[in-house]
Amino acid sequence: MKTFFVIMLLFSTASAIKADTVPVKPRNVIFMVMDGTNSDSVTLSRWYKGSPLALDKILTGGVRTYSLQSSITDSAAAGTAMATGEKTIVDLIGMVPVLRNGKMLEAKPAANLLEAARQKGLATGVVSTSPVQHATPAAFSAHSINRGHFDDIAEQQVYQGVDVILGGGKESLLSKPETKNSRKDGENLVSSIKKQGYAFVETKEQLTKTIGPKVWGSFAQSDIAYELDRKKLYPSQPSLAEMTRKSIQLLSAKKKGFFLFIEGSKVDWAAHKNDPVGMISEILSFDTAVSEAISFASQDQNTLVIAVTDHGNSGLTMGNISTNQTYPVSPAETFVKPLKAAKLTVTGAASLLNHNRSNMKKAAEAYGLTHLTKEEWAELTKSPSAEESMAHLLSKRAHIGFTTNGHTGEDVFLYSYGPDKPHGLVNNTDLPKIISSFLSLPSLSDLSERLFVRADEFYGSKGYKTELNQTDPQNPVFRAEKKGSIIDYPINKNYLLQNGKKIRLIGVTVSNGNHVWISPMKPTP
Amino acid sequence: MKTFFVIMLLFSTASAIKADTVPVKPRNVIFMVMDGTNSDSVTLSRWYKGSPLALDKILTGGVRTYSLQSSITDSAAAGTAMATGEKTIVDLIGMVPVLRNGKMLEAKPAANLLEAARQKGLATGVVSTSPVQHATPAAFSAHSINRGHFDDIAEQQVYQGVDVILGGGKESLLSKPETKNSRKDGENLVSSIKKQGYAFVETKEQLTKTIGPKVWGSFAQSDIAYELDRKKLYPSQPSLAEMTRKSIQLLSAKKKGFFLFIEGSKVDWAAHKNDPVGMISEILSFDTAVSEAISFASQDQNTLVIAVTDHGNSGLTMGNISTNQTYPVSPAETFVKPLKAAKLTVTGAASLLNHNRSNMKKAAEAYGLTHLTKEEWAELTKSPSAEESMAHLLSKRAHIGFTTNGHTGEDVFLYSYGPDKPHGLVNNTDLPKIISSFLSLPSLSDLSERLFVRADEFYGSKGYKTELNQTDPQNPVFRAEKKGSIIDYPINKNYLLQNGKKIRLIGVTVSNGNHVWISPMKPTP
Repeated sequence: MKTFFVIMLLFSTASAIKADTVPVKPRNVIFMVMDGTNSDSVTLSRWYKGSPLALDKILTGGVRTYSLQSSITDSAAAGTAMATGEKTIVDLIGMVPVLRNGKMLEAKPAANLLEAARQKGLATGVVSTSPVQHATPAAFSAHSINRGHFDDIAEQQVYQGVDVILGGGKESLLSKPETKNSRKDGENLVSSIKKQGYAFVETKEQLTKTIGPKVWGSFAQSDIAYELDRKKLYPSQPSLAEMTRKSIQLLSAKKKGFFLFIEGSKVDWAAHKNDPVGMISEILSFDTAVSEAISFASQDQNTLVIAVTDHGNSGLTMGNISTNQTYPVSPAETFVKPLKAAKLTVTGAASLLNHNRSNMKKAAEAYGLTHLTKEEWAELTKSPSAEESMAHLLSKRAHIGFTTNGHTGEDVFLYSYGPDKPHGLVNNTDLPKIISSFLSLPSLSDLSERLFVRADEFYGSKGYKTELNQTDPQNPVFRAEKKGSIIDYPINKNYLLQNGKKIRLIGVTVSNGNHVWISPMKPTP
Repeated sequence: MKTFFVIMLLFSTASAIKADTVPVKPRNVIFMVMDGTNSDSVTLSRWYKGSPLALDKILTGGVRTYSLQSSITDSAAAGTAMATGEKTIVDLIGMVPVLRNGKMLEAKPAANLLEAARQKGLATGVVSTSPVQHATPAAFSAHSINRGHFDDIAEQQVYQGVDVILGGGKESLLSKPETKNSRKDGENLVSSIKKQGYAFVETKEQLTKTIGPKVWGSFAQSDIAYELDRKKLYPSQPSLAEMTRKSIQLLSAKKKGFFLFIEGSKVDWAAHKNDPVGMISEILSFDTAVSEAISFASQDQNTLVIAVTDHGNSGLTMGNISTNQTYPVSPAETFVKPLKAAKLTVTGAASLLNHNRSNMKKAAEAYGLTHLTKEEWAELTKSPSAEESMAHLLSKRAHIGFTTNGHTGEDVFLYSYGPDKPHGLVNNTDLPKIISSFLSLPSLSDLSERLFVRADEFYGSKGYKTELNQTDPQNPVFRAEKKGSIIDYPINKNYLLQNGKKIRLIGVTVSNGNHVWISPMKPTP
């Protein structure tokens, strides 16, 4: 009975944040990120396309992207900033440092926009072309001390109660077949997904046909192909625009208002490879998705669309050392024509290579490297990485410059459309605050205190003996025990077990490997 | 008598464009350009400063910068676009191509904002840290087929009737002493300037003291020093902010409304040298000038401030190959601390070098290159260009990347403040249209037709014999002759000589070396 009372304490917290009255006309937010995209690559993509971008119509300002520790952020810290309103450090997903005297003691979870939208009763969605467990979509739907912990992130996503999740990352849902990236905890998350009432779809065709309302689309073991490659090599995968359209359709059907996060993930991946073709492919793919979002928002009149990149990457410029003198007489074709010769991205082209690289010429040609000079051929065949060498040769032909294979620190463009759209120079942490305000969500910092209560402190203060039980290291459990009564909180899940009886929580249980944070019980309807 | 009638035809055109009724509260525009500044270098400058920029408060959109022929513009074409609303080709100053079947026959002048403001009766000013004859300020105040024709540009500027001109470029005003860059036409433009009633000032102190109303400030033979160097090496030169404040003060005293063009010219120069210290010096100097402009505009409430760069340059990024792995743990100090060690720009530091470079260590130290490693010292002493080598070494220490020594083609940030400020993504040619509309100026294309009448066609149709008389090749004259009556239009001047009698025109006479364009007589008050 006492145990029940203690749990009720948590419950009473929960009742304070039950859904507010739904406004007469629901408000929606579509938050779109093109990962790792400097402004130069957007300009280049416009020339490549030959006509204005959807983004061009909604440019409203700029965004500062730095992280808590670095002038150049990684995607985990940037995603966390945009999802939670808190600056954080590298690799943390929805977690922020607990500091003492400027030193980090540990990381603790911070509530994100999707969780706030869920608490408010809105429909929610997450879409990406990367594995959905990848840094940016993860930051909008999970909490982990390491962006690489796909297993934990996947598990939390499954138990977050998101309405629509579309993207890659199937391998993090299953333990079998055993691969480098398959789950280590033996759990079959696809079963869990289906048990929760999701339509689980794996192809573009299935996605088109499904009527939801809850849909989990997993279209690739890892990432969805670059748009340019997808059309030719992986036509059964959906495009980002198709996923965007479908997710809007599903979420808007719920009539409660929605928060939808969408990432064009792989501009960043191509930028790390210094592949201008891949970057353009993904920017134009993202832009088409933006067009879908604007199209809905312009009809709906009550939807705020925000589109940003989380940081620059690669330092791509139109113009390089070879144009030091010739730049003022360099029409768009100078840059675009060599790039248009590529029928696949460098990743797609390199994927054609056989084991002994005897078909190098064919692969190079697929990447637009036709009529190779003797020097080009020598560079290509000598290079340990065909991909790297091809990207380098084509960029040279196209007079494209790069400064790095890593991220860069500049302010980036802010794009927004709809009522109360943000403008001017903002910090990436301002965006969730603007969205919270537009959707009348609970404050994210208040929500963090409600959703993430230190489990040992809470139960400890009630006289419980507590421990983080890691007997099964892949399935750790927070346990509180008093006079034979056992309360277990499986990490990454949204329920507790009270002497074996499952009771739903309003959020997922999060661990940093040392401490555990728990949320209140879900109020019974 | 007939001659008089013909000239009166031109006169009647003039009467149509006499100043409109001055509005009750005059409107002002301050158009500010930081030349050749990519967004990354602005972000870097903010970190260097350690606090927000004035520009941060007025970011409103983006600008497309391409020229008529190239995705990467030079400053002449960009300046012309922003001054006249017309895209043009490399090297043309206030001139646009006359095309037939897509081929350029010749270049003809296009009216600029300053000319339109003058026609409307507004006060006007031009300020730059470069020679005022340099491409961007030239495009706002002159017309030439070659940005290098400083003599012609200077002469037109003197005869344009601008109220305030402040900057460098003294050597283009005088024929003596004879130097590489002194005037070739024997004219003493300083005398002409003084005859026209300008206070001619040459130092910061003189500038401070002058009460105008017309002021010509010429503070350097060529360019004004980089701000960082100016403070230490050329303290008698004014800063851009000081020139900005003074020019606003002088022009606003006229109570007619004003159009003021201001250029922070030398971000571009430092960018061409890949000198991050010089770039930061000039961006922060420009930003202080922007702060002056905003301060006036916020009090005045009727002033539109626009600040832009004309194009990217150098592809500077925070982050380079050396940060491929470390970027997410690179605090601002990683980049800024090595740069702050520089007490002078690379140009300032290199200017300390003696002839045999025996004091290389001292020069390098002035540029922040202390405790040189053996490898650094070897690179520095072996390099034919100490400047180039020093810039390279410091950028390496500061983990700054560059892609080129030339311009780049990306969209840039638009900054604006005040009533009717532009926002969103605009073309550089949109800006003069927005300003024209704000100031109720005559349309620039209409004004081009009125200010620039083909002299041979006009007089030819009246039965005159016409020629471009180049007997004195440095002082060409358009001559129309009929029955002993001779009308001479000296090129680049704002008057004609009717049988030797000087009659004022409303604009300057422009030649492209083949054809000549003339404007109507100035109406007598």
